[in-house]
Formats: sequence, C-alpha cells, structure tokens
Amino acid sequence: MKYCIGIDYGTLSARAILINLDNGNTVAESEFKYPHKVMDITLPCGTPVDKNSAFQHPQDYIDALSFTIRDIVKKSETNVNDIVGIGIDFTSCTMLPVDENAVPLCFKDEFKTEPQAYAKLWKHHSAQDEADYIDTLAKEHNQVWLDSYGGKVSSEWMIPKILETLRKAPDVYKKACYFIEAADWLTILLTGNNVLSSCTTGYKGMWNKQSGYPSSEFLSKITPKFKNLAGTKLLDTVLPTGSKAGTLSEHGVSLTGLSKETIVAVPIIDAHASLPAAGISDKKLMLILGTSSCHIVMSKKNIPVKGICGSVEDGIVPGYTAYEAGQACVGDSFNWFIENIVPAGYINEANALGKNIFEYLDSKASALKIGENHLIALDWWNGNRTPYADYDLTGAIIGLNIQTKPEEIYRAMLESTAYGTRSIIELYESNGIEIEEIYATGGISQKNSFLMQLYADIIGKKIIVPDIPQAGAKGSAVLASCACGYYKTYEEATKALCNYPRHIYTPIKENTKAYEKLYSVYKELSVLFGETHRHIMKKLNEL
Amino acid sequence: MKYCIGIDYGTLSARAILINLDNGNTVAESEFKYPHKVMDITLPCGTPVDKNSAFQHPQDYIDALSFTIRDIVKKSETNVNDIVGIGIDFTSCTMLPVDENAVPLCFKDEFKTEPQAYAKLWKHHSAQDEADYIDTLAKEHNQVWLDSYGGKVSSEWMIPKILETLRKAPDVYKKACYFIEAADWLTILLTGNNVLSSCTTGYKGMWNKQSGYPSSEFLSKITPKFKNLAGTKLLDTVLPTGSKAGTLSEHGVSLTGLSKETIVAVPIIDAHASLPAAGISDKKLMLILGTSSCHIVMSKKNIPVKGICGSVEDGIVPGYTAYEAGQACVGDSFNWFIENIVPAGYINEANALGKNIFEYLDSKASALKIGENHLIALDWWNGNRTPYADYDLTGAIIGLNIQTKPEEIYRAMLESTAYGTRSIIELYESNGIEIEEIYATGGISQKNSFLMQLYADIIGKKIIVPDIPQAGAKGSAVLASCACGYYKTYEEATKALCNYPRHIYTPIKENTKAYEKLYSVYKELSVLFGETHRHIMKKLNEL
Repeated sequence: MKYCIGIDYGTLSARAILINLDNGNTVAESEFKYPHKVMDITLPCGTPVDKNSAFQHPQDYIDALSFTIRDIVKKSETNVNDIVGIGIDFTSCTMLPVDENAVPLCFKDEFKTEPQAYAKLWKHHSAQDEADYIDTLAKEHNQVWLDSYGGKVSSEWMIPKILETLRKAPDVYKKACYFIEAADWLTILLTGNNVLSSCTTGYKGMWNKQSGYPSSEFLSKITPKFKNLAGTKLLDTVLPTGSKAGTLSEHGVSLTGLSKETIVAVPIIDAHASLPAAGISDKKLMLILGTSSCHIVMSKKNIPVKGICGSVEDGIVPGYTAYEAGQACVGDSFNWFIENIVPAGYINEANALGKNIFEYLDSKASALKIGENHLIALDWWNGNRTPYADYDLTGAIIGLNIQTKPEEIYRAMLESTAYGTRSIIELYESNGIEIEEIYATGGISQKNSFLMQLYADIIGKKIIVPDIPQAGAKGSAVLASCACGYYKTYEEATKALCNYPRHIYTPIKENTKAYEKLYSVYKELSVLFGETHRHIMKKLNEL
Repeated sequence: MKYCIGIDYGTLSARAILINLDNGNTVAESEFKYPHKVMDITLPCGTPVDKNSAFQHPQDYIDALSFTIRDIVKKSETNVNDIVGIGIDFTSCTMLPVDENAVPLCFKDEFKTEPQAYAKLWKHHSAQDEADYIDTLAKEHNQVWLDSYGGKVSSEWMIPKILETLRKAPDVYKKACYFIEAADWLTILLTGNNVLSSCTTGYKGMWNKQSGYPSSEFLSKITPKFKNLAGTKLLDTVLPTGSKAGTLSEHGVSLTGLSKETIVAVPIIDAHASLPAAGISDKKLMLILGTSSCHIVMSKKNIPVKGICGSVEDGIVPGYTAYEAGQACVGDSFNWFIENIVPAGYINEANALGKNIFEYLDSKASALKIGENHLIALDWWNGNRTPYADYDLTGAIIGLNIQTKPEEIYRAMLESTAYGTRSIIELYESNGIEIEEIYATGGISQKNSFLMQLYADIIGKKIIVPDIPQAGAKGSAVLASCACGYYKTYEEATKALCNYPRHIYTPIKENTKAYEKLYSVYKELSVLFGETHRHIMKKLNEL
C-alpha cells in the first residue's frame, strides 16, 4: 500500500492529510495553527504595520510542515517508505524575501523590526498605489500579458508587492536574493531545487508559458532597478503544476522525517487545488465559496477573456488553460451583515430557538417569496473583482422602505452574490468557454443548502457539491499521486481517488423564471455603477 | 383680559391651549387621546379593513373637543365670556361622509360595520388605484389645476378617497349628503355654517380660488356619478383660512360650554399652522420635521412650481400664496433604522451609558468626519414627495463596504434627509420663490441639535428653531385672534403673540464646503433613480 501527503496552507493554519493511493481515502489528518496568526496591527516586536497590511511569520510555515507531517505519520502508523509523494497548496500571492540560502530576511536580527522583511499574505493590500502605478504603465505600453489577467493589475500580486518593498524598505530589497511565493519557497526547502510553479507564477507573477515575465524593457519602466528583476530577484525556472519538483533534500528529510525518495510535486494555489480534489477537468466550473469566491474552469482553448482575473496555460493540469474569475466579497458580506445589521431581538430569538444566527436568518429569509423583498443589492462590499477589477467599487442596496426587514436585506445580499456568479458564468460562455456543470466547494457550500438552492435557481444550472473533507489538501495529494508516477495520467488518478458522496441542487424552473426580472435589474445596476456611472462610487471613495 | 383657544388635531390625540391675547402666553393646556386610535387592522366591531387603510372614529374628535375645552376652562378658571375665539388645525386630508345634519354615516347602525363610512385619516393610502386613475385622466385632459399640485394626484386627497368609497361601498356614497374634511366638519358642528377652509380645500380638494373645483366635465370623466360632485357631495362655500367662520351655534355651545358670542376661525391644516405659530410670512421657509417633512413658504407671487405638493392662494394667510413641498420619510427612516439595523452591542452599550439609542447613535455619528462614511443614501423610504411625487420610488444606500459601521449608515440617512431638503430649497429658488431664512419646527428640531447643525451645514443657510410649545394649537389660536377682530392684521397679532426663545444654527463654512461634493453625488443619484432610470425602482416595486 502506497500513500501521498497533501498539505493545505490557509490564512490561519495548515492542514495535512495522508491518502491511500488505491482508493483516495484519508487515513490520517493533522492541523497546525500559526502561532503568529495574521500580523495586521504590529509585528511580534511591537512595531506597528501600515494600514491594509497583512504580514505572516514564515517560521509558522516551517513549523506547520514539520508538525503536521510527523503527526499524520504517527497517527496512521505508516512506514515512511510507503509515502511516495507530497503535494502542497497555499493561499496566494503570499510572498517573502529570502537570502541565497532561502533563509527569510525576517529571520535575521537586522530585519526583525522591519515589516517588509516578513511574508506578505494574499490579503496584504497596502501595495495598491504600486498596483495602480504598474497598471497605468502596462496600459500605456500596451502590455499583452495584461489580457491574461482581466486587463487589470492587482495589489495582491507579486510585482506590486516587491515594488512596495523597494519603496518602503530599500535595504530589504537590496538584501533580498530573491522574492518568492511561500508555496515555492517550501518546494525549495524540501528539495533544494529552485523551481517555481506555473500556477503561482502564472496567476500572481505576470508570467506566462509563451513569453515568461514582462520584458526587461517594461520592467525597467516601473523602476530602473527592476531591469533585471526576472532571472535575479525573480526566479525563472517554472514547471507545470503537479509535475515533479524533485525528491527530498537532506534538509527536506530533516524537516519532515520522510524518506529521501519521497517525491515533491510542484505546488498549486489553494483555491485551484479544489479542481483536482473534485477530479474535474474540461467544461466544469468550480465555484469556490468562501469569504470571497473563485470561479475556475479549465478548457483546451486558450483565449483571452476580458474581465476575469487570470488565465494560465497548465495552470492546474498540463494541457488545459485554467481560467479564473472572482467575486471579492461573499461570506465576508454575510459576516458583515451579522456583525452590523442584526437587531438585538433577532439574536435573542435565535438563542431561544437554539439556532445560530445564520440558521435563524436563513429560516426567516427562506420563508420569503422571490422578489418579496423588493430589493436588489450590488455585492461589491470588497470592490469588484470580475468583471471590473475595480476595488473602488462598493456595495449598494436599492429598494429600501420602512417595511423592509433585516432578513429581506440579508436575502438580497445572498441573492446578489448569486447574481454576481451568474454574470461571471455568462461572461465565460459569451467568450466561448463552455460550462456544462457547476461544482461547488468551500465551507458555505457544505453548510448552507438554502443558499446553494438559491444559487441553482438564480443561475439556472445544476450545482454539484461533492463532500470532500480537506479539499485543498486532497487536491494537492491527487497531484502528488501523478507527480510521483503512481498514476500515469491525471484522468486515471482522479477516477481512482476522487469519489465522494455528493449533493446535487437542481434549479426549480419556476424560481429560475421568477428570478429573471430581478437578475435583469442587477445587471442594469452593475452596468450603471460599474461602467456608465462608475465615477459615483469612485467619488465616494475619494472622500 | 381676553383669550383664544387653539386646538390641534393630530393622528393619535388632540391638544388644546388657551392663550392670553395680550402676550400670547399659554395659560392652560389639555390633551385628549383618541380611544379608537388608528383603525388599520379592524373596525371596533371586528370587521377587517383593507391593506394600507387607516380609519378613525369621528366620535373621538367630538369627545376631544368637549373634553379639552372644558378642561382648559376649568384649569385656567377663566370666565368663558372672556374667551373670544377658537381656532382649529387638523391633520389632512382626514375626511368623512356625513348626512344632511352633519352626522357621520358610521354613527348609523346600517354602516357600523362598513369601513368606508368612517373617517379616512391622512395616511389612509388604499385609494392609490383611484389616485393613479384620476392622475392619468387629468393628464389626458390637460387639467391646469394639476400644476398647483406639483403635477401629480395623491392618494391622500379628498377626491380619490371619495372615488374609493364609491367603488367599495356604493351605498355609503349614495347615502352621504356630502364628504368633508374633519377640520371643516368641526366648523359646521360648532357654528352650523356649511363653510370650508381655503387651506384644506385648496391643498387637498383640487380647489383653487380662481376656478374652484375641477370642471363638471372633467369630474364626469372620472365617473358620470361625479358630474355634479362639486356643489352637492362637495360643499363649495370656501372662506380664507383664519377668517371668521361664524359664532357658536346652540349645538356648539352645548358641545363646548363656551359663550355663544365666541367666534370660530376657518380652520387650517396642522403642518401649516406652524407658520402663524412662529409668526412668519414672506421669504421665510418653515421646515416641519416629523416622521415626514413639510417645507412651506409664503410669497406674494402666485406662480406654478413643478414638483412641489401644492400652492394655494390664501392657503395660510390672506394675500399670500402658500407653497408646500415635502419629504415623505424623515423621522420614519430614523425609526426604521433603530428598529431594524442597530446591533445588540450598541443597545447594550447605550443602556450602560444611560443614553437612549438615538443619543448614543448621534454621539457616534457626530464623531465621524464629513464623508468619512463614504456613503450616500437616497431618502425615499416612503417614496418621494418632492420633486417626483412618486411613491414607487424607494430608499437606497450606496458605498457600503465591510468596514461600514451602523453609525455610518445612520449618519448617511440623516444626511440624505438634509440633502433632500436642500434640493427642495433649490427648487423653490430656481422658480423665483425667494428664501431668506429657514425656520424649523417639529419634535426632531427641538430634540436633535446634531441633526439641526448638519442641516444648516448641508443647506448652507441659518436655521432658526423657535421654542413653541404646542405649535399647531398656537398657530390656530393666533389665527383665531385675527378672526375675532382682537387684532386688525396678521402682522399685529404675530408681533404681540409670537415671541419665543429660539435656537439659531449657523452653517459652519468649511462643513458646507465639504458637503458640496457629497451633495452633488446625491443630486446625481436622485436624477438617476428619479428620472433617467426611474424604471429600476418601479420594477422592484412591481414584484
């Protein structure tokens, strides 16, 4: 019996699983919570960090690796020689500056009090000025790579974050041998091979398989210091995600306690790992529902789709282009509602009924007829990712009156996120990317059947929710099963490993019909505030 | 020493005062709460009433008259021969069907279970279909009187309410000798003279001094049954508000216990009574802040102003045209916020601080900088009265994000009502109605200095808040002092009677400047949702 490990690095913890390579069953799992959590107020030394910053301590990533792997080996009583592969997925872009030995600069005394020397988490948004600046330059200089990113540079990406470091902490920039995604940094720690993933580099590094990074000419326009960025402070050996990155180095063995024959797969971004976890490839959209949402679909076609977040050849599985779109605010807006809008009486009643407040609101909201709330919301509480890639856009609620009840607003907010998803699906389809089935994953998809039925009704397509415990880690383990050669093809691996109980939400025709009119209002409001009258929300944001 | 009585009929009670005619001081006051309150669910017999209905029992009005007058006479120990005048103001249009002896039809056994036989309160809105129908006809037939009403027939008016009676209870219609405003009905009870007020008839009866009611030709287009409505089921002797309606009849003496020489003034609508209460006439706008708001200004000019609610010659004081505009939702939306949006933690904290929740929110909201909430609301929670006279329009909040706090929404809602008032002032001014000073009255103006300063800042004009206890009753008493000839002119009367402590809110220049940008966004959103894209809110309302 052979096994693979998958490790999923999230925002607050890492979760590892060990799977049996014959049937995909999880035989052990482990979690490690990062002791330093997200550092968005101060560093451990007390140094305050900039507004909108979100740093992490890379020691947490190493400790998570050592702890969880040893923990699952111990729990499962597996012989380490039977563990043939490791796959890793990571929230991205999470990046850090390291020295020539891949030691993070924040480990060094001279940089312990310098925020820019730590890892910048995906949700570190303080490089917005840098992103805007690079975006303007890219447009001025007609950079074709921008088409693969929905036409807009995001503050979450690698190069804006590096530019921020250069501006705020030139010493860190100078001392950094290179800047690297945390996922790829772990590959280097484990294997000693300086290789990057096509997924992380393709989605977050402005890199693509044909042309690599933006040209030296363009990079030097950002700053002359960036002239040779690609190939120096940005590594440029990029391997397809899920292929073999190497076997464990001596350091890798000491970190993990595994055998030196263990093969390490090229890592993947956490959201993207749910596709191999579910075992899907062509013409199936994966809807990843969380605080924000991702909509990923793979296709043999490689065509630009304006407005999506990125399209990357070999981004998830070799041979397919993986397209990614997103909604910046989904669960986040529901949480906002709970924290700011729910009146005291509702909390008391929910408590009396022994329900949590979400269950209570869902039951009240589900009792409403479609359109009975007479409300439309725009789901842009965190800005708009697809199709406008504009973080100055904001949320809106239209149709309020003095009869409006909190559950009506809540339902309007749920519905707005479904309208947003439908408009993304229509964007894909109108660009020639076929979508036959929708898969959903993420906590919300498992917990909230009212919401999932509402999505199916509004979108008008069947939604399949496979019950995959630890989807990120499972996807990583599936990729590892191919990387180590246990399976010859991705299709063979998924057929063997990816069988789960599933819940299917089928659209109720009359509901889909009833939602048409509401959706048309949502679309009209989107165009109004996102296009023809975009200046309104911009103006409000400028205040 | 001579005295006048003023009685203010509100939605839930009537309040009477007795004033000294030398100095205007109140020497006694009394309140009578209507035992039947507002009947919007069932009649006293248990008969359910239609949705959006709001009936009252006219016996309550009679009982209020008898109780409060006797009560103030007793409390003040005044000789009734020294009480020379009575003035009445009433919420309007509050109307009822009566027989040839002015007995309400609901007093008769045959109609006790028929809702349409009772008094329909101002906020009885179930004649909306009738209002829409008459509005369409009026436009088709180019009715010029429509210009005096802001170009739109309201469901709150007399004739739509009569048409509703004809449609829903043809027997009541048939048996009604006439339909009459409750204010004018009280005049008849007191004096035996079948006269109407230019204020009630002008604002709510589609009547004007030059041409009277709409033509018989037009009325018969509504229904052939209305051919002779004017002059039969609508009385047509209309006297200027504040002139003499008559002296007490025998019945009037028995109802009130006053002397038969007591002169009864032609009544006024409650909101309008605040102008004589404050003693203002030309070029001063009276802002009446309540659940909704009125904006009344008098001018020697008589010109149509598109978008306002009504302009009536002699509507308040003879010789002036009184213009009225309105916002349908002010205090109502603040109450909505308290009931639906305030989270439990805020209630607890307010309690801990010993503050009521409004005080608590005001203190949180006032700590914000202008524009710091990045929000704009449209204050249309009850539809829009001025300038669109469209009750299908609804409230909206634009600019929400996951950092938005309840007090930021609350402040945006306060601000939106001030923007609405500013746009009404600009509408008046752009039509040539000069406004030099703003007076404010109504509970909110006394209680909420944060809101009043915010209004002054946003409007950019000084706001004077005189402290008039029982403003409605005081205004009625002031008019009575002229009607009974104690004062020769309105100006003389107000000079003697209307001196109060006052609070003056002076705009802070830098705040006014800071609000310019926000106001421009409000205006743009108003035009968007009220004009160019009006169909959006209409569509939502149709669902």
